[in-house]
Amino acid sequence: MVSKVVITAAITGAIHTPSMSCYLPSSPATIIEDAVKAHEAGAAVVHIHARSPNNGKPTSDLGLMREIAAGIKQRCDAIICMTTGGAQELATEERLAPVAELKPEIASCCAGTMNFNFSDVACSIKNPKFDWEIPYLKESQNFAFTNTFEDLSHYILTMNKAESVPEYEIYDVGMINNISYFYKRWLAKRPIYLQFILGVTGGIPATIDNLTYLVKTAREEFGDFIWSCAAKDNSQFLLGPAAIAMGGNVRVGLEDNLYIKPNVLAKSSAEQVGKMRQITELMGGEVASANDVRIMLGLKGRSNVNY
Amino acid sequence: MVSKVVITAAITGAIHTPSMSCYLPSSPATIIEDAVKAHEAGAAVVHIHARSPNNGKPTSDLGLMREIAAGIKQRCDAIICMTTGGAQELATEERLAPVAELKPEIASCCAGTMNFNFSDVACSIKNPKFDWEIPYLKESQNFAFTNTFEDLSHYILTMNKAESVPEYEIYDVGMINNISYFYKRWLAKRPIYLQFILGVTGGIPATIDNLTYLVKTAREEFGDFIWSCAAKDNSQFLLGPAAIAMGGNVRVGLEDNLYIKPNVLAKSSAEQVGKMRQITELMGGEVASANDVRIMLGLKGRSNVNY
Amino acid sequence: MVSKVVITAAITGAIHTPSMSCYLPSSPATIIEDAVKAHEAGAAVVHIHARSPNNGKPTSDLGLMREIAAGIKQRCDAIICMTTGGAQELATEERLAPVAELKPEIASCCAGTMNFNFSDVACSIKNPKFDWEIPYLKESQNFAFTNTFEDLSHYILTMNKAESVPEYEIYDVGMINNISYFYKRWLAKRPIYLQFILGVTGGIPATIDNLTYLVKTAREEFGDFIWSCAAKDNSQFLLGPAAIAMGGNVRVGLEDNLYIKPNVLAKSSAEQVGKMRQITELMGGEVASANDVRIMLGLKGRSNVNY
Amino acid sequence: MVSKVVITAAITGAIHTPSMSCYLPSSPATIIEDAVKAHEAGAAVVHIHARSPNNGKPTSDLGLMREIAAGIKQRCDAIICMTTGGAQELATEERLAPVAELKPEIASCCAGTMNFNFSDVACSIKNPKFDWEIPYLKESQNFAFTNTFEDLSHYILTMNKAESVPEYEIYDVGMINNISYFYKRWLAKRPIYLQFILGVTGGIPATIDNLTYLVKTAREEFGDFIWSCAAKDNSQFLLGPAAIAMGGNVRVGLEDNLYIKPNVLAKSSAEQVGKMRQITELMGGEVASANDVRIMLGLKGRSNVNY
Repeated sequence: MVSKVVITAAITGAIHTPSMSCYLPSSPATIIEDAVKAHEAGAAVVHIHARSPNNGKPTSDLGLMREIAAGIKQRCDAIICMTTGGAQELATEERLAPVAELKPEIASCCAGTMNFNFSDVACSIKNPKFDWEIPYLKESQNFAFTNTFEDLSHYILTMNKAESVPEYEIYDVGMINNISYFYKRWLAKRPIYLQFILGVTGGIPATIDNLTYLVKTAREEFGDFIWSCAAKDNSQFLLGPAAIAMGGNVRVGLEDNLYIKPNVLAKSSAEQVGKMRQITELMGGEVASANDVRIMLGLKGRSNVNY
Repeated sequence: MVSKVVITAAITGAIHTPSMSCYLPSSPATIIEDAVKAHEAGAAVVHIHARSPNNGKPTSDLGLMREIAAGIKQRCDAIICMTTGGAQELATEERLAPVAELKPEIASCCAGTMNFNFSDVACSIKNPKFDWEIPYLKESQNFAFTNTFEDLSHYILTMNKAESVPEYEIYDVGMINNISYFYKRWLAKRPIYLQFILGVTGGIPATIDNLTYLVKTAREEFGDFIWSCAAKDNSQFLLGPAAIAMGGNVRVGLEDNLYIKPNVLAKSSAEQVGKMRQITELMGGEVASANDVRIMLGLKGRSNVNY
Repeated sequence: MVSKVVITAAITGAIHTPSMSCYLPSSPATIIEDAVKAHEAGAAVVHIHARSPNNGKPTSDLGLMREIAAGIKQRCDAIICMTTGGAQELATEERLAPVAELKPEIASCCAGTMNFNFSDVACSIKNPKFDWEIPYLKESQNFAFTNTFEDLSHYILTMNKAESVPEYEIYDVGMINNISYFYKRWLAKRPIYLQFILGVTGGIPATIDNLTYLVKTAREEFGDFIWSCAAKDNSQFLLGPAAIAMGGNVRVGLEDNLYIKPNVLAKSSAEQVGKMRQITELMGGEVASANDVRIMLGLKGRSNVNY
Repeated sequence: MVSKVVITAAITGAIHTPSMSCYLPSSPATIIEDAVKAHEAGAAVVHIHARSPNNGKPTSDLGLMREIAAGIKQRCDAIICMTTGGAQELATEERLAPVAELKPEIASCCAGTMNFNFSDVACSIKNPKFDWEIPYLKESQNFAFTNTFEDLSHYILTMNKAESVPEYEIYDVGMINNISYFYKRWLAKRPIYLQFILGVTGGIPATIDNLTYLVKTAREEFGDFIWSCAAKDNSQFLLGPAAIAMGGNVRVGLEDNLYIKPNVLAKSSAEQVGKMRQITELMGGEVASANDVRIMLGLKGRSNVNY
């Protein structure tokens, strides 16, 4: 039987660009609005990135991140998982700054180095709204998303210090081993919380088979651990139900997938959350509340964040 | 993306007994009624067994089977998949007789020999309606469901002659190889159609991992093939969505699972069909019609059956 | 790194017939001789069956089994694993009698019901030495090797009473679950000792992939357990090294494979043991002694058997 | 049955340092000598890197690479697989120069971006022979081995132009997909030749399970393809035999493993080749000659290289 299922909504991310969907939120106000709605629809956790309010370009600007986090906190109980992935050109320190300063309940931590190529979509954009979009997408062909062992050590220590629980983003099998490396050296601590992200060009493809392999590998490595599954594009509503069937949790949201069904744009992350909630309940499960997740992951609580 | 999903409804089977659920159909009339409703709810195929109208005991009585098949045919377009599994004590010839005589569009064929133990449920029945129930359940502890290579050869030849497409029931990995054995000897023919049945005590347990392993093994063996997934009890609504996500089809119905959600009895196989249809559509799929299945499996059509 | 590797020699079995190899031992004297040599070559355990001294036909005759076991015990320290598989036509009681009476250190216990088809080899025998051989082989096409849950319960209880450690023979994935069924009901006890047997027609085929899947499935089920791998024919020297690489143990012997390399008959089980020992050592491993195995499996010792 | 097994000897690599083993060749003369001996011992292919003759530091100096390649060519028939991995600090152009200029029969091409951390070994070196060793090892903690999609495209085009067959080095599951990406875009051509390298910290760990998963994934992606397996340290003699059992080929050599058995340094790559040859033959296989490999991979032949 399925226990409570945590739905995370990844609101805007750093991959999609404004021209791909008019529903992609960019300004703090729209990001906050979407996060709140996603929470109301069933997402216990919202995963947030910031974008420039002027042109929607991904940024890890501390001020924007604070504004977004504070805005969400003010309006609802959602747990905030703050990105450290940032955008292509950011240095480690810039990527880490919001976590060090704002001390969220959860922070994402990409568990290794990989190619992260989303250039193919560039050719489908005929009239880009902003000049940065096409070059940004095309340059990803040459983008190595770099998180060396030294970086990882720095990330984990910073999160430990901020009492933010790391959500390790796992894009391939070897990354499980990277986290195990730090677990054996006492840096990565229990509960181990993994977000399997499948379907990125450069990472492991989005198949059920790959998902089961990742889960089994992590179980052999860690014994008990908590995990969630995110998948690119339409795979979201294929791998998600499979993850639920395996006892895992799911991430949806416009960061990973702009659609609500093949060829139909989602109007918000909340719309996707609602759909995943329906599926969860049809499968005999129940959606976890923010407080369920706080207990499950041993979070410090919303009163202990710095925003 | 998900293509059309075939939903099969296994109406009554030979495992559950009347005392387990008042909704389990036994008489030809109730079996027909449930099959028709399941078809209306979205099941392109109905998998049928017969039971004694007096006491609900499983039987492969030719007359009853004809009555059921003819009744369904008269009222709807559903494809009939006729069992050859029969019940515990039946001989091969008895099990085969309905197929040889009635020549349905599809017939089930268990792909090997195994233990088939459903005795544990006996202790949960306090006041059995019929005398045969408890002994029938308990005896399954000593039941070997026997389908030797000689039997299988006889089954496949009979089905080939009746122009009934075999639905090979796969209860464990080695059974895939059994069918491959006959495929290489020209008895089993394309399209190879496999029903993976997980969760029977004596067969492979109902996990997503096992399902993916079965599918991969069959793909390595046959290349293209068509498959569906059935799972015992509540696993039905866990493995079913995963099967859809993998490009497979699904079987539901009171034969496999008496429940609509944990601890709530399903009122009919149709109710389960409806739920699986909803899940299919939420996942971006579409339910296949009987004619879709006739094309997919190359069936001879309802006008060429002998009932 | 590889720890000590247990080599089991399965001396004669019940599948091969005298016309297939002049080296297949049949009489108690030749079986004893081969077992002793296999032990000297590095086999800590010898797995024994009996055959009629007149015509080499498999039997589970208690007197012959006693003669063989006593003869081996007299001449060397090898641990005896006594079969309960017997031959095609034997009843449960006959198959169990030698264990109940002779109380060996280890006894084999097939963990479920399956087809066991070795009929294809019949056509390669031109001039059979004995009349029984061709029919015996051909009949296996119709042979269901039956070990129901009731049988298994009887077997395990008898072995527990005789203080013989069961070596559960696993021919397919579901059989792991069968043993787990008895483990959860306190009949099957630790240490759980599994012999994975791959490549029988009717069971799981002999591939590395299947072997890894069996091992992982058992590890998820039991946590710690001890296992060995046997494979039919030439696969013996393919799966064996892979088993060693995975931390498992290996079974060789003329029961499983009549060859020492493709197209060359092995002159004895000892010759195969010697080859596997060489491979083990080249891979950085060391062959376990009988006493190593006694400690590993918690055996009662050779002074506590009844022969 | 096992077909011919290609043994590749990776002579010196860019990971180990002179202080780790006095047998690690550094000068062109010793690299040539070891390559020739490895070929005589059974390696059809030698995989070569260059090191500074003064201090053994890895380099991709064109002159040294030419000297090594020409020296080997003069003395034996071994196929040369030239590295493009180079060393930590090299730019893409530097790494590619030897292939563009010398046009070897095979060139290695790492199929993606990853962490490549071999820093842990630094603490085991008490008295380094050369100043560069400890910093070089320690810096690998911060080393991202970068091969973006743009890099890969450049590599493959250069190799296609030089008529050098790429040996794609696969360090994790997603890298198979990277090659598939280029295969679908007509850059990567058949025969697809993959070197699975397991056990690097940052890549997929060296387990049989991971090896089978990589092989199955690639088979699902490419259908027919040719592959070999390399594994770090002592895993070499564990995964190697498993690879042979799966129908694959094997890489040995001091680049991957300095030992001949646990705690005993190998005196040369040739010594490891000899051991793997023995294992191959015991498993019923035969070692492939250079000409076997030329046919298998469709190589242009030694007369068409530019050295």
